[in-house]
Amino acid sequence: MSSKPSIPKGTRDFSTEEMLKREYIFESIKEVFRLYGYQPIETPAMENLTTLLGKYGDEGDKLLFRILNSGDFISSVSDEELVKRESGKLSSKICEKGLRYDLTVPFARYVVQHRDEIVFPFKRYQIQPVWRADRPQKGRYREFFQCDADVIGSDSLLNEYELIRIIDDIFKRFRISTVIKINNRKVLAGIAEIIGESARIIDITVAIDKLDKIGVENVNSELISKGLSDEAISNLQPFFRLSGNTADKLDRLGKLLSKSETGMRGIAELLTLFTLIESNSLTCDVELDLTLARGLNYYTGAIIEVKSKDAAFGSICGGGRYDNLTGVFGMEGISGVGISFGADRIYDVLNQLNLFNDIRVSSTEVLVINFGENETSYAIKILNLLRSLNVRSEFYPDAVKLKKQVSYADSKKIPYIIMAGEDEINKNSVTIKIMSTGEQRSIPLKELGSFVKEEINSPKS
Amino acid sequence: MSSKPSIPKGTRDFSTEEMLKREYIFESIKEVFRLYGYQPIETPAMENLTTLLGKYGDEGDKLLFRILNSGDFISSVSDEELVKRESGKLSSKICEKGLRYDLTVPFARYVVQHRDEIVFPFKRYQIQPVWRADRPQKGRYREFFQCDADVIGSDSLLNEYELIRIIDDIFKRFRISTVIKINNRKVLAGIAEIIGESARIIDITVAIDKLDKIGVENVNSELISKGLSDEAISNLQPFFRLSGNTADKLDRLGKLLSKSETGMRGIAELLTLFTLIESNSLTCDVELDLTLARGLNYYTGAIIEVKSKDAAFGSICGGGRYDNLTGVFGMEGISGVGISFGADRIYDVLNQLNLFNDIRVSSTEVLVINFGENETSYAIKILNLLRSLNVRSEFYPDAVKLKKQVSYADSKKIPYIIMAGEDEINKNSVTIKIMSTGEQRSIPLKELGSFVKEEINSPKS
Repeated sequence: MSSKPSIPKGTRDFSTEEMLKREYIFESIKEVFRLYGYQPIETPAMENLTTLLGKYGDEGDKLLFRILNSGDFISSVSDEELVKRESGKLSSKICEKGLRYDLTVPFARYVVQHRDEIVFPFKRYQIQPVWRADRPQKGRYREFFQCDADVIGSDSLLNEYELIRIIDDIFKRFRISTVIKINNRKVLAGIAEIIGESARIIDITVAIDKLDKIGVENVNSELISKGLSDEAISNLQPFFRLSGNTADKLDRLGKLLSKSETGMRGIAELLTLFTLIESNSLTCDVELDLTLARGLNYYTGAIIEVKSKDAAFGSICGGGRYDNLTGVFGMEGISGVGISFGADRIYDVLNQLNLFNDIRVSSTEVLVINFGENETSYAIKILNLLRSLNVRSEFYPDAVKLKKQVSYADSKKIPYIIMAGEDEINKNSVTIKIMSTGEQRSIPLKELGSFVKEEINSPKS
Repeated sequence: MSSKPSIPKGTRDFSTEEMLKREYIFESIKEVFRLYGYQPIETPAMENLTTLLGKYGDEGDKLLFRILNSGDFISSVSDEELVKRESGKLSSKICEKGLRYDLTVPFARYVVQHRDEIVFPFKRYQIQPVWRADRPQKGRYREFFQCDADVIGSDSLLNEYELIRIIDDIFKRFRISTVIKINNRKVLAGIAEIIGESARIIDITVAIDKLDKIGVENVNSELISKGLSDEAISNLQPFFRLSGNTADKLDRLGKLLSKSETGMRGIAELLTLFTLIESNSLTCDVELDLTLARGLNYYTGAIIEVKSKDAAFGSICGGGRYDNLTGVFGMEGISGVGISFGADRIYDVLNQLNLFNDIRVSSTEVLVINFGENETSYAIKILNLLRSLNVRSEFYPDAVKLKKQVSYADSKKIPYIIMAGEDEINKNSVTIKIMSTGEQRSIPLKELGSFVKEEINSPKS
């Protein structure tokens, strides 16, 4: 094996610098989730395929990573089945488990499985990787991290409001200017009903979700190709032309949807939510966006999507209400609402906008130089002292040339070097070099503690 | 689907209480790793099977979880191969990726792949789950977490010494009394050489590793069954009978191994290491244990294992030096040494010894009671204030009966309740209930900030 080893496409290694930046993202999100009373859970990477299949549409089923059964997996397949060579059918014979595709379905499974231990309304957050066998491309990975907060067991729109505040708080911490777009699935259903195409709601939402990208003409052509009547398409047009502020839009929408009970309920929900938002100022912009559909058919109420105003990276957070996600696992009538932050997208935005400047690349604060065996026990004494004072410090393990050790500190951006050779040992002192200025100071060992308190005890990352 | 959903055997969900306990373990370990200058990296859950296969022995290869290739996986298998029904061969045709089995091999792969970006000696830590298709049993899972610290690119025994200090520091924080057992692979090789059975070193180490559990007689029978000569077995006996303190044992061992160059190098390494350890007092007991082999054939120097003195859970941490782990990936002559903490075992020990008492089960500090629509905007004002003061607080989302809301706070162990109904709003005040005592206090809203600072601002978990 002489060629360099590699990792599967679409996956990544994270270097220390990337890790520290990512930790900053995860910790910030976690802190806000906890500030709002959300509590952590985790679920296993592998779920039974019966849990995952059929929850993400046909396309999603294809994107699941399946785990080959252990042992003699082929014995469960008949000769006849083997010879047919149907990968789809075979895979369900030889694989019982798959890697999780998102955190929402495992959460629904968790809620049903642990219903007797859970106190409802149940506010949980979960920060874990998910896996999708998607075609890898820039900004899209096969292993990526989701940060989800959901509350289940309450219909109240206060939950939607609090989740929007969470979004606002988190992006304020990141100093990313965002716009939060809000829609309501009941309004979309109302539109489909009013234009006489209730059965085609999925085709309609998929098409109008693209309005931003492809324009009205192309959306209309797509709808024609899906078999919508000319009349329906013509009735749809007024919905594309809503303008003014949110109140104006909701007002106009109320007139257009007055004959749809579902649609009017959606409008009432939006009104309640926007009233709460507007009477409690947020940093983000919040706007009603009727074209927002997010393609996820389990949403039944609010639909939420967040975009950065300064970087073009698509959605950096999204979510919505689902009235019956636990129903597929046999627990009916439990409504939930949640949001999911895309840590990898947020990373890219922070990087592009240079908002990572405060993150320290090295976590080590002091390097103690290794002068050799005779000086080792004195060096160890210094290290014990530093660590007892909570100073992150390391001892260069080999007694190589000073220059090499200093250059190590330099590459690792370690801000202080301590030298203690024969001279220092005789004087019971240490020499400290401050790397940023090159300044060297000799101080008695017994004053090292005060030096640490005054100079080094900077806030820990 | 009416039966309760479940998760694959050997995997686990983690509830909030478990999560908070686990976070305490991970954070403590991480803090100490950083205190010693180790820096974080992460690698993907999936590795190419070429990276993983052949690194853990035949048994290990069988325990790898393999990921089925996406798409028409069966097309790469010929009819002939299909009909043979050899699961082993087929699996390598239809799977290119596997889940990582430990963190050491992915680390070696990382070092080789990123050699040009890495500053050596490279001290990294890594805390991630690993997966093994082992037979699940009490305390053994198919998904479990390892916490590894390794330094690569330095031969110095100071690395071993510092890793032992890390072990000592970590278990001191956990208040777990431990014994650190140390051996050296070169000594084991020396023993095999001296008894004339160098070629059988693996059989010998596997057998004597069981000395503790099965006794001398059974170890000897096992060695006979492996084909060792009576003479070799008789020459082996003195090694089982070493007694006294470490210095005595090393002294006697020096005499027994005097004709083995490798063995004598092992003794010299042990002497250096024990001298460093003994001149810098540790909390843990540290002892030489010649029967320690750990079955991992990539160890070439120190072998380390840690056990709890008060709970019988097998090894809770282990490690050793490997001189050529990166060699299989085409990068020769780089020596490394590392340790791995078993987070799940440590969890079990802490639980059994009741050492988790300080962990708070709830992270929410205040529940604001929901009295209905008219009181909502006043409640939101209170929540905004609390959160701006960094108090973890939640708003009960539905205006249900007070009793139900209080019982929610009770089940979630939330220590404070704030009530603000019509009366409080008119007086611009709040009523605070302290759950532990049942005491209720009415205070002006503008004094809520000082109440928080004096009463609630306890240390955050």
